[in-house]
Amino acid sequence: MAPADDVPYAAVPRASTDGRVHFSDELHESDAADVEDNVLFDQPTDVLEVVDNDTLYYGVSLGTRRRMRKGRGFWITVVALVIVSVVGVFWLYFDGISWMQRSKKRNVILMISDGFGPASETMARNYVQQIRGLPVDYQSPLDEILVGSSRTRSSNSLVTDSAAGATAFSCGIKSYNGAIGLSSNHSPCGTVLEAAKLQRNMKTGLVATSRITHATPGSFSAHVTHRDMEDLIAEYQIGNYSLGPVVDLMFGGGRCHFEPNTHANSSCRADARNLIGEAQERGFRILGTRKEFDALDADSAGKQLPILGTFAASHMDYEIDRNDHEQPSLAEMSQKALDILDKATKHTNSGFFLMIEGSRIDMAAHTNDPATHVREIIAYWDAISVVRKYIDSHPDTVMISVSDHETGGFSVAKQLGPEYPEYKWNPQALKSAKHSIEYISSQLLSPSAHASEDSAERYKLVRDTVFPKWMGITDATHEEILQVAQETNSVSLRQLLSTAISDRAELGWATHGHSAVDVNLYAYGQDAKLLRGNHENTDIGDFIVQTLGLNLQSITNLIKNEKVVQSTQTVKDTWLGRRDLDAPEHYPHTH
Amino acid sequence: MAPADDVPYAAVPRASTDGRVHFSDELHESDAADVEDNVLFDQPTDVLEVVDNDTLYYGVSLGTRRRMRKGRGFWITVVALVIVSVVGVFWLYFDGISWMQRSKKRNVILMISDGFGPASETMARNYVQQIRGLPVDYQSPLDEILVGSSRTRSSNSLVTDSAAGATAFSCGIKSYNGAIGLSSNHSPCGTVLEAAKLQRNMKTGLVATSRITHATPGSFSAHVTHRDMEDLIAEYQIGNYSLGPVVDLMFGGGRCHFEPNTHANSSCRADARNLIGEAQERGFRILGTRKEFDALDADSAGKQLPILGTFAASHMDYEIDRNDHEQPSLAEMSQKALDILDKATKHTNSGFFLMIEGSRIDMAAHTNDPATHVREIIAYWDAISVVRKYIDSHPDTVMISVSDHETGGFSVAKQLGPEYPEYKWNPQALKSAKHSIEYISSQLLSPSAHASEDSAERYKLVRDTVFPKWMGITDATHEEILQVAQETNSVSLRQLLSTAISDRAELGWATHGHSAVDVNLYAYGQDAKLLRGNHENTDIGDFIVQTLGLNLQSITNLIKNEKVVQSTQTVKDTWLGRRDLDAPEHYPHTH
Repeated sequence: MAPADDVPYAAVPRASTDGRVHFSDELHESDAADVEDNVLFDQPTDVLEVVDNDTLYYGVSLGTRRRMRKGRGFWITVVALVIVSVVGVFWLYFDGISWMQRSKKRNVILMISDGFGPASETMARNYVQQIRGLPVDYQSPLDEILVGSSRTRSSNSLVTDSAAGATAFSCGIKSYNGAIGLSSNHSPCGTVLEAAKLQRNMKTGLVATSRITHATPGSFSAHVTHRDMEDLIAEYQIGNYSLGPVVDLMFGGGRCHFEPNTHANSSCRADARNLIGEAQERGFRILGTRKEFDALDADSAGKQLPILGTFAASHMDYEIDRNDHEQPSLAEMSQKALDILDKATKHTNSGFFLMIEGSRIDMAAHTNDPATHVREIIAYWDAISVVRKYIDSHPDTVMISVSDHETGGFSVAKQLGPEYPEYKWNPQALKSAKHSIEYISSQLLSPSAHASEDSAERYKLVRDTVFPKWMGITDATHEEILQVAQETNSVSLRQLLSTAISDRAELGWATHGHSAVDVNLYAYGQDAKLLRGNHENTDIGDFIVQTLGLNLQSITNLIKNEKVVQSTQTVKDTWLGRRDLDAPEHYPHTH
Repeated sequence: MAPADDVPYAAVPRASTDGRVHFSDELHESDAADVEDNVLFDQPTDVLEVVDNDTLYYGVSLGTRRRMRKGRGFWITVVALVIVSVVGVFWLYFDGISWMQRSKKRNVILMISDGFGPASETMARNYVQQIRGLPVDYQSPLDEILVGSSRTRSSNSLVTDSAAGATAFSCGIKSYNGAIGLSSNHSPCGTVLEAAKLQRNMKTGLVATSRITHATPGSFSAHVTHRDMEDLIAEYQIGNYSLGPVVDLMFGGGRCHFEPNTHANSSCRADARNLIGEAQERGFRILGTRKEFDALDADSAGKQLPILGTFAASHMDYEIDRNDHEQPSLAEMSQKALDILDKATKHTNSGFFLMIEGSRIDMAAHTNDPATHVREIIAYWDAISVVRKYIDSHPDTVMISVSDHETGGFSVAKQLGPEYPEYKWNPQALKSAKHSIEYISSQLLSPSAHASEDSAERYKLVRDTVFPKWMGITDATHEEILQVAQETNSVSLRQLLSTAISDRAELGWATHGHSAVDVNLYAYGQDAKLLRGNHENTDIGDFIVQTLGLNLQSITNLIKNEKVVQSTQTVKDTWLGRRDLDAPEHYPHTH
């Protein structure tokens, strides 16, 4: 709800047509007609000489044009001034300037910082402040646009997962953990992306650093009972369902779910369907490399949608591990997506809906890997800056930035023993890390140039490379080195590495899963202020629905008979599984 | 800073007279004169017939009164309408309604939820939602008035303590951890309370559930180098310094620092000064019991300020332990303080400044005691409701609610072992607790009716009373019972009890100290919207300065020669000490 002092002094009642939350302190274009009937404007018409409607606000016209009575100018002027002032004042209170500026064309950019809680923002700000020597009152590109917070619980738990979290945004409803574009009774729910495409003829895009088939992008573009059904999500994404192709642009990882299992090295599908080929038949332009990404010209690409660009077989690399010659950054993908969608809608009356996810902020928090986590956040900030710059020159656009949930039970403090702690944490401890714990553990556990089964060799590798060069830790103890060198279980190994760097930074983690804390809500651009205050996560979906004038129920009606394959998996299964799936033996990796 | 779309379309530049943050999207009364010079209003004066200034906005007057030229009424009307509309529109954009409503009398209520981070608010909301069967979209009295967040770091650390945190609010400056009303160079800084009293002739009050001499109330009313110098803080609070008595009303705990050490059972002073007697000589009315509190009539009390009411020798009891016949609640103290200050200022042109602290939210988090923590939060919400209700009938009042910092590195999730956790936490585990861990440990470690040195007796006490009756834990294991029964170190005992209840609730703690995470910022009443967005904690002090038109520098000048006793203590010393100090052998307790 908005702060209470925001309540208009005399609110224009808005008709509730859809039973959803209304942002009632805003005068919508469609409400203009109501204004005439409002008592505020119900002045005797005989004292008002109405000028041309074009030069004044719509509501000022009382629909009567009368001839000025000469000689009574002075008092008429006085009364008119008072009336017009009062009208102007109330009009502006109902947000008239925003109304005046609005055109019919609207762009909505929904940015999702997966697994990014309040402590993560503070930590990243402290980090760049200290590492880059910025002033004490430095604000990140997000800090500058904070508007409130979002409550994250799902329909079946106080602690949501990313699927239910993204479905709250995409369908505007609470669903169960694991649900992808499905209501809590397991029936498909129309998404804002589908409605923007089909009802408003808008262009649509999904950008993510995870597999594009992962829970968050999946929830806007597919309807499956469990987030792990990524083969099926890929089929939806290329239009293999009753609505046909609705996503015009996809940039991210996850090519392996589009490739047939006959491609043993690059597929993770269970079947032999070649969705890359099917997508091409449906008109998709296919990209798979950095070179192809760079060569993509926005002008021509804008005319040749849809595009499916997958730049990694599984997730794209963490920012800390990313080779800039191999994979684009989130900011680069965001910039290109904006350029293309902007060109594609330039000469039309409909804008675009673009979802951009900083997907792996979450995954670094699952691993309790603070050096990787902070770099994912900074990469997300870079994408935020790209979008803010776009909005500065395209005022018909609104960007929302929100997280689905917090991950890690992360704290910007950690007590290291029974002794009472000093009040501090150490950003410097994260500065010299060069690789993610995921990368390091895969190097230590996979046959590679680095690893060796000889224990003395492994000890040397850990002592001379892993700690000092990859993690930036120059004071590792013999005990720490030995434990890491001897550990063969990937979960335990990651825990050892996490503890080594988190202890030095004095950063705490309560879990490898998610937590319930409200997440920060940021917004920028047109009508951003309507999101001020503390909101239910479903309000984000409702805001998009209202901004674009969508009707999700009619999309739901179109897909209600879509066949939904039941799954018996639980979210816990997923993450237990994922920790193995993320290892190179299950998902093909590029390094 | 406010969201960027809040930037006025053509901002009225505000003169910076003090080098502080300006809330520039608000038109202050003092700015009205500037408006005339603004280009927006720089219209040719010969086309405007100006009506009486009293009936129109100040800025509309261009300072010229000319005689209406008859016969040209129509076009003059048209042009005037347009100009007045434009002026009205911009005026409202600069918040004219708020300006128009404002009278000179202003009340400021600063509520401080000590040690209350974002996770604590979510946890408490989840708790009451589930325990009271409230709807999924239930919002607490704080949720409804969220406006932003506050960055908390101090001048010497990324993690502040309560003294530096409160000094940021009271003096509007960053200082070092431990500083009470002192700048980072250890010189006294004028506080908003002192300035409100001396410069605006306002009434002032401090309400806390801690000792009233504790860091937070101390930082508004004293100037000492270290928070532990509570004997000295008490001397300041009764006016024993160059400004004389500046606090008109004090309600809280902490009588022991006002009593001479000759009162062995009720004093914690190092010397034999009787500050109660000294206060009476200075005109203070003294209260010490619930009965006296209840008997205090707002009408008469409002005429007999100052009042010093201390309802416990040390801190007041936690809400979970509180005997309603012995001590008033925070909400009751808040209500009475408002009634008295309202009466005291009723027929004057100056309002009041009141600081209300939910002091022990923090202390429960230091002990990592979630059942006590949540009840302290709910008690704070009750006080918020009292204040909101007051503001609803006193629109010249603004309330800010903010925390100085987070405590505990608290997470609304906890992984209990190496196995991946389910996504949930258990509010029910906190429901049946009847006492704080502080109370329980003091009962177990002090000679009392309950405790016994006989190990079988102690085991029975823990098994039959401590776990099931005091903590609401009915499934304690033999191992847990034995450990608690055998533990004689208070720190270790509290840790055992904390783990027992936190594990069952699945709530995580990273430290017994503070963490750096930004805290939520709430505001209600007049000009509350000026606090929207992400702020430095010093902005809270600056906001009060601007709201009340204070000049802290001139107060600083008055007290710059105040003798400041140096302390070599550190904040870490304090808390190491406090954990013993809180035990009954150091501070007299009422139970």
